Amino acid sequence: MLLSKLCSLRTKECPADAKMKSHQLMIRAGYMKQVANGIYTLTALGQRACLNIENIIREEMNKLDGQEVKFPVVMPKELWDLSGRYSSIGSEMVRFEDRNNHKMLLGMTHEEASVHLAKNWITSYTQLPFMIYQIQTKFRDEPRSRGGLIRVREFTMKDAYSFHDSNESLNKYYEKMHDAYMNIYKRIGLKNFISVKSDTGMMGGSVAHEFMSINDFGEDEIVLCDCGYRSNQEVAECVFEEISNEESNGEISKVFTAQAKTIDEICKLLNYDLKHCIKAVAYAVKGEDSIVLSFIRGDKEVNEAKLKKITGKDIVPVSLESDSRFFAGNIGPIGLNLNENLIVVYDYSLKNSVNMVCGANEAEYHLINVSISRDLPNINFCDVAKVKEGDICPMCKSNRVKIVHGIEIGNIFQLGTKYTKSMDMRVKSSDETEFNPIMGCYGIGIGRNLACVIEDNNDEFGIKMPISIAPYKVHICPLRLDNENVNSVSNSIYELLESEGIDCLFDDRNVSAGTKFSDADLIGMPIRIVISPKSLENNCVEIKNRMTGDVSKVNVDNILEAIKDLIK
Amino acid sequence: MLLSKLCSLRTKECPADAKMKSHQLMIRAGYMKQVANGIYTLTALGQRACLNIENIIREEMNKLDGQEVKFPVVMPKELWDLSGRYSSIGSEMVRFEDRNNHKMLLGMTHEEASVHLAKNWITSYTQLPFMIYQIQTKFRDEPRSRGGLIRVREFTMKDAYSFHDSNESLNKYYEKMHDAYMNIYKRIGLKNFISVKSDTGMMGGSVAHEFMSINDFGEDEIVLCDCGYRSNQEVAECVFEEISNEESNGEISKVFTAQAKTIDEICKLLNYDLKHCIKAVAYAVKGEDSIVLSFIRGDKEVNEAKLKKITGKDIVPVSLESDSRFFAGNIGPIGLNLNENLIVVYDYSLKNSVNMVCGANEAEYHLINVSISRDLPNINFCDVAKVKEGDICPMCKSNRVKIVHGIEIGNIFQLGTKYTKSMDMRVKSSDETEFNPIMGCYGIGIGRNLACVIEDNNDEFGIKMPISIAPYKVHICPLRLDNENVNSVSNSIYELLESEGIDCLFDDRNVSAGTKFSDADLIGMPIRIVISPKSLENNCVEIKNRMTGDVSKVNVDNILEAIKDLIK
Repeated sequence: MLLSKLCSLRTKECPADAKMKSHQLMIRAGYMKQVANGIYTLTALGQRACLNIENIIREEMNKLDGQEVKFPVVMPKELWDLSGRYSSIGSEMVRFEDRNNHKMLLGMTHEEASVHLAKNWITSYTQLPFMIYQIQTKFRDEPRSRGGLIRVREFTMKDAYSFHDSNESLNKYYEKMHDAYMNIYKRIGLKNFISVKSDTGMMGGSVAHEFMSINDFGEDEIVLCDCGYRSNQEVAECVFEEISNEESNGEISKVFTAQAKTIDEICKLLNYDLKHCIKAVAYAVKGEDSIVLSFIRGDKEVNEAKLKKITGKDIVPVSLESDSRFFAGNIGPIGLNLNENLIVVYDYSLKNSVNMVCGANEAEYHLINVSISRDLPNINFCDVAKVKEGDICPMCKSNRVKIVHGIEIGNIFQLGTKYTKSMDMRVKSSDETEFNPIMGCYGIGIGRNLACVIEDNNDEFGIKMPISIAPYKVHICPLRLDNENVNSVSNSIYELLESEGIDCLFDDRNVSAGTKFSDADLIGMPIRIVISPKSLENNCVEIKNRMTGDVSKVNVDNILEAIKDLIK
Repeated sequence: MLLSKLCSLRTKECPADAKMKSHQLMIRAGYMKQVANGIYTLTALGQRACLNIENIIREEMNKLDGQEVKFPVVMPKELWDLSGRYSSIGSEMVRFEDRNNHKMLLGMTHEEASVHLAKNWITSYTQLPFMIYQIQTKFRDEPRSRGGLIRVREFTMKDAYSFHDSNESLNKYYEKMHDAYMNIYKRIGLKNFISVKSDTGMMGGSVAHEFMSINDFGEDEIVLCDCGYRSNQEVAECVFEEISNEESNGEISKVFTAQAKTIDEICKLLNYDLKHCIKAVAYAVKGEDSIVLSFIRGDKEVNEAKLKKITGKDIVPVSLESDSRFFAGNIGPIGLNLNENLIVVYDYSLKNSVNMVCGANEAEYHLINVSISRDLPNINFCDVAKVKEGDICPMCKSNRVKIVHGIEIGNIFQLGTKYTKSMDMRVKSSDETEFNPIMGCYGIGIGRNLACVIEDNNDEFGIKMPISIAPYKVHICPLRLDNENVNSVSNSIYELLESEGIDCLFDDRNVSAGTKFSDADLIGMPIRIVISPKSLENNCVEIKNRMTGDVSKVNVDNILEAIKDLIK
């Protein structure tokens, strides 16, 4: 490919909101161009890298006997009504009416489509297990797109679906898929990634893992322990010492606290620490008149994902200032006016606590000396707290956990029979009885992985493309193309490499060596060949490895061999 | 791939509306499954064949220095407003509002997106010409989907866009692209295809060609001549003998024709032939109160596409029975009440005609003895007639044309500057003046081509997949897998071929030889290997070429070589 004809641009400018290196570099090196909020066109640089990632994924899926299929992007409402997801998924799913007023949607995932395909075709347990996958465009109307390809509205995704006759079969396959994913990340050039337990979210099912690229810009919090424990914050169990061995200071008493408004002010006023506060955190339930009240120790934060799961409600934080049913700022577990529109959840952090302060459910008053087991017997505790750096590891129960940020680069789910049951897919077992196959599903976004690879592989000068996914393996930089020798040697090398199937960028522009080098650094192809009048005096060219920075001189006659060695 | 695990089905049943062989066979052999009207899921059989077609197209595009990019499926209205196509395209384009009430659409083609990408990046004539292309899902809300993959609503398409600094450059590239397309069709296994001149339709521009797979079920009419002339009926020039050397029977006279209603009855009543009738064909203009009246010789039909182009109006056939401005059934060119809402077009077939009959623009009366040049001097004739089998060839002007039916399998357009002008893409020429680049665009649908390949390659037993696009090259049929020798030899062959990168279907089912053979015929993989206890007595297996029917015995030790030879 001649660089002069490449429909792309190298620039020093990038959008003000581009905080992440990958976002900046993909714009500056001309890998993509924004079309609308969260919607990009990929240039040949971006798309060829994505195609290489796709092919690596394809290889790994085929190794697991995956069958590549293609489901439709546009599907009818009826298909998604079967699983109930047409109505349960919010406005991130695009819905429209076709010319005949049929309700249609743009598929976000393809569980329904995969069961539709397999149903009535797969009828015997002897046909199980099998796995089908596709690589295709998806559109999700994300409320907040950000970070270039990190969070977009339109993206290419590999999604896979496996069908099994037993949990044992699913577990075995799930493990293999887990390994295949780790293999994919390694092969495409990611450096710092892990798998963590995760929430099953809108997919349903029980077991799920996310793969995370460790990155300070990541929106996910990951809880880690040296013992090997890894979990997404959303599902990480919170473990810490109870305050149970304290002696009680005596009976509950009510104190006047009008002068203190915040929890910190209360602590200061009453000379309590946060660990001795019972904090009330309120949430409104979407589409209902209900309130979820969560009582939690003052030094802890509520994990909304856990609270959602425990209550089974779609909740949003709410202020109760204008709610006449509550004394906002003075809400506490004792003397609370319970009713059917109020769901109360107590976090484990309160269990066996003594000498606590809490709201008195009366304006301007708090209660002190509250002992949970004495004053609030018979209540159930749940785990709704966020894990904090330094909390006890829930697995080894001895180490203290660390918290890092990560970007989700893939996920795998054990779905169970949610979709085969609701869509009535039945298969005959060996004893002729019928059962609903157990499913797994496995997703990986192509563009986001490319962005994460660039996050992990760059320097102050630009991108360092791993050779496995580089859009072009070799960047040929002839200096002084007006020199006949340089011109003819450069073109011979270009033709030779291309004829051997090694894709090259050829900088045919009449610009300075400095511009050629800085552009080559920015674009980041893994191997650079510099052909100059000087090096040709010894019949040599210079080869630079962009990843390592290593430079070597190679005789023109040995160039193919040298390049092939580097590619290996 | 084990046949028992293939998520697919072989069946004798197919939908009642499946008239075309390819539609029947792709359903019966389990290449696809319908999800909704004009929307299909492709199984591994269908998708792998499509991927092979895509790769052949990719190779041909890359040979022309094409840069593979990826444009978004979902685009904002604003982008399409620039070209005016957001409003000019009808309900076949899907429009919806995103969560922020922004108007969005599903892209049908990507001229706007390609100019958006190139604009501001390509700034000098030295960067021209270049070509960008993508292979991606498109959704068009077709009013009538039909014929399986022949006319669907969702499909995968390769669309390419080239940019030039002169018509000469475009012409040169257009020719190369034309050849590349012909090469693609040959390589994927189409047998009977041609390129024809065509209408530019909604794309704008001047020169255009369609590639047609000749097929009786095709909806397009193609005009052919032995001299090499080929044209889509829509743009084919109509040439025939004028009736000019006849002597006039005298002056016009009005005759009473109340008893005759149709043109045939008029002819019978007055003893005229169709060639001596002036037929009036009426059209309403969409969105206007206007009428287009086309006068044409009685033995000719109006070509709506031509009439649309000439009038520049979007027209639909209309009956004037209830229109008080006209005497329906008695409309003629003489004494017609002309006004601004009436557009009258005279077809060339009337030029110099004598002794014609036409409506008198008066109820129950016709005129006879009309001589066009005498009675209607100074009128302009246009070519609005459909070409008929046996008409004079417009190119060689001597042979008679044939008419065949075809399925459009690709199209190429010279777009001119329609999009670069409306989107203000400017490039500097060598003298520093600015110009709008000239564009070409080039489309080919993947699934429709697969269907046409199957149309051209099948027999009573099923599909004959060309080896270039076959989902699996080899179908291994072991007979009696319970025989230890058959089992071990079959599995060795399977492993050997797969390890050499030759994808195989392995029929591991415990079914009769008859079922295995008929399924293999139906699915249609190009090479079949039959391993039976009997043939193994001589250490041989049987190889069958599905395309030719040739059968040969091959020693087990030479199997790899034999298969490689066949693939070549």
